[in-house]
Amino acid sequence: MSSKQSDRRRFLKDSVALAGLAVGAMGSETGLALGQDAAKEAAKEVRPSSKGYPVYGENSRFVTTARKHDYEKKPFPGKMVTPLQDIEGIITPSPLHFVADHSRPPDTNPLEYRLLIHGMVDRPLNFTLDELKRLPSETRICFVECIGNSAPGKHDGPAMREGKVAPTSVMEIHGRTSCSEWTGVPLSVVLNEAGVQKGASWIVSEGADSGRFSNSLPITKAMDDTLLAYSQNGEAVRPEQGYPVRLLVPGWHGPFSVKWLRQIKVVDEPYMTKMEVSTHAYLKPNLKGKARWFHFEMQPKSVILRPALGQRLPGRGFYEITGLAWSGTGAIRRVEVSTDGGRSWKDAKLQEPVLRMAHTRFRLGWTWDGEETVLQSRCTDEHGEVQPTLEAFGRSWGIPNAKEYWQHHTAAFHFNGIQPWKIDRDGSVHDAMFL
Amino acid sequence: MSSKQSDRRRFLKDSVALAGLAVGAMGSETGLALGQDAAKEAAKEVRPSSKGYPVYGENSRFVTTARKHDYEKKPFPGKMVTPLQDIEGIITPSPLHFVADHSRPPDTNPLEYRLLIHGMVDRPLNFTLDELKRLPSETRICFVECIGNSAPGKHDGPAMREGKVAPTSVMEIHGRTSCSEWTGVPLSVVLNEAGVQKGASWIVSEGADSGRFSNSLPITKAMDDTLLAYSQNGEAVRPEQGYPVRLLVPGWHGPFSVKWLRQIKVVDEPYMTKMEVSTHAYLKPNLKGKARWFHFEMQPKSVILRPALGQRLPGRGFYEITGLAWSGTGAIRRVEVSTDGGRSWKDAKLQEPVLRMAHTRFRLGWTWDGEETVLQSRCTDEHGEVQPTLEAFGRSWGIPNAKEYWQHHTAAFHFNGIQPWKIDRDGSVHDAMFL
Repeated sequence: MSSKQSDRRRFLKDSVALAGLAVGAMGSETGLALGQDAAKEAAKEVRPSSKGYPVYGENSRFVTTARKHDYEKKPFPGKMVTPLQDIEGIITPSPLHFVADHSRPPDTNPLEYRLLIHGMVDRPLNFTLDELKRLPSETRICFVECIGNSAPGKHDGPAMREGKVAPTSVMEIHGRTSCSEWTGVPLSVVLNEAGVQKGASWIVSEGADSGRFSNSLPITKAMDDTLLAYSQNGEAVRPEQGYPVRLLVPGWHGPFSVKWLRQIKVVDEPYMTKMEVSTHAYLKPNLKGKARWFHFEMQPKSVILRPALGQRLPGRGFYEITGLAWSGTGAIRRVEVSTDGGRSWKDAKLQEPVLRMAHTRFRLGWTWDGEETVLQSRCTDEHGEVQPTLEAFGRSWGIPNAKEYWQHHTAAFHFNGIQPWKIDRDGSVHDAMFL
Repeated sequence: MSSKQSDRRRFLKDSVALAGLAVGAMGSETGLALGQDAAKEAAKEVRPSSKGYPVYGENSRFVTTARKHDYEKKPFPGKMVTPLQDIEGIITPSPLHFVADHSRPPDTNPLEYRLLIHGMVDRPLNFTLDELKRLPSETRICFVECIGNSAPGKHDGPAMREGKVAPTSVMEIHGRTSCSEWTGVPLSVVLNEAGVQKGASWIVSEGADSGRFSNSLPITKAMDDTLLAYSQNGEAVRPEQGYPVRLLVPGWHGPFSVKWLRQIKVVDEPYMTKMEVSTHAYLKPNLKGKARWFHFEMQPKSVILRPALGQRLPGRGFYEITGLAWSGTGAIRRVEVSTDGGRSWKDAKLQEPVLRMAHTRFRLGWTWDGEETVLQSRCTDEHGEVQPTLEAFGRSWGIPNAKEYWQHHTAAFHFNGIQPWKIDRDGSVHDAMFL
């Protein structure tokens, strides 16, 4: 086939499985009537409802897209992953947002809600929800990502060596990131009302969950683009996401964005809260027993979501490779895709709008020849930072042989190594990160 | 109060109702503990659930935002309006998208779905849903608006003279527009596969609803930016919105975007379908009994959503005026707001991203002095077209005295007259369009 032929005409020609069924002309005298068989088939599809529509709409009964429980710490089922492979565009539907809780959520009556601002301020303040909502607001589309998303221990190989079940879909590895349109009051507005005192350098935020989740945040970020978010994708913030008010710290790992926010204390040092110094601190090998505390921005990451682990290509032919890229450092500038195990790379098309600290949708047309191969994507952020390979990521943590090391030490935070997917000749797709 | 003081510090000072309750410092030895009363109150808020989260999340039980039935044509309850006043940002949550159906929707099994492309094409094609989804896709955030949204007959005054109930909230007047992130196959891709023949100038699309809703579309628009949309806000298109596939014709009035799409016929003239020549045609006075057919783009429109009809300001002080602006002609470039009955206008802040043919969120801070006044907004699109007053809109239709005329002739399509809201001294907000 000539490479000069337009891409458009190649989709059907190259594809056995895709070939749209060519039908004979079947127009009737009146022009719009379908042929008899087609009309019968269409009639079967029509099952009118006499009830009309509900005031709060529902999905088709044929749609079963759902999150998956991620039972790391039984018995509390507070961890769920987003089915990234099943969603389109850049907005994660609110019912499918990932969850990574450490204790039980509150069930807050909005009329009883209060937010206390205190500590090193001139005027301690206590806001009702209505009072917060009357203040100037902002909206931004941005992602929230779990500090441990995509970690080596989630991958095929290392997971099983830890006695876990091997992941069966891309969501189990990478589904701890979601992107919403958040609306709320800039935290700077509220802090300015309270009057931050000289010498203040951090804030400590606390949630109303049963464990009183707390986290420290440098005041520079608090005064920059942090929101007191009360709305998610147009609606009230979901209970799982911190209803009625959560902190939203754009681009920084999830634990900064404290949910069910009940108080903010302005202070002059980080508070070394329970999670900061335990679960979210990282003991790395070359630090001789010392821990790395206080990671901030998530680094540039991209993942191909279709085709991906758990899917099966029905046959050779045209496919649109699609996935998401994002970075806590700003906007994604470029996503390259390789379909030949890394020998060559092509620029994928980025879907507008490309927004800072938001998921960015990328797409690239590809014709599979039916042979074994490896697909992978790598992104570059607005600062020229390129998503690293597993080995390069390891070197940045002082680990010389990352593939070997993380087979047996499965923890890593902010993991953004390039994800290779191996495609077998039967069309099945496998996780090749640790192969 | 000095006008030089920063806006930030004015929110609380000017506001009686808003005044955040200043509290005494209540830090304990450990620093983060609340005072005893506050702690008791916070404890009441915590009602842990032992069930954990569902795989498809739900709203808080305290959130009751919902659409409203719009029973124009009983008994079929296929018309619902979006609660624009209750949502934030620019994305309309899918469960709250407006509906304006003319017959009963199908309940389509996606495995049985077929889309037929025929008429003046070289190769008639019949696609399954899976086949469509393997083609190159695009995502765009854009609005869909009913041809009759905001019409004079929806307003206070004219509605009652028609024997209808007066509107009690802004959604009843303007809630037939919603904005989603749509994903699908560009119609041009599919038409190119089929091979459009010389002389073809229109397409006719037909839905699988009980009335087989049909509409004509110029082929230039079909080949430009029209989508075969199968995804809405990341999920499958909702049943009410055309599951599994709808046409999405950016910027043009709703009826072009045929839902539950079952066939597209390529033709050489518009088909004068039932709705085109009846309900959606408009008899205007200076045409002497002739009708105006084929309206296309929706013109620039803006509406203040808070404060708006049906709301009540709790007292003088600071308020953030917010609303939406949109245009089928492209991007919104400017929104001006008047808080003094049109004597002076201030530029509102437009929330990024400002997207073509999408809702655009605008905001302006305002301090109410407690006196009677009128709020209104007017927008300007990327071509310099300014939203008209009621009288100017009337003149464009050849109606010299619009306010008087539309008291008694309540139909109008593509109505985009400036919406004035009158605020009484008791804080109640009224529709002043026909006052």
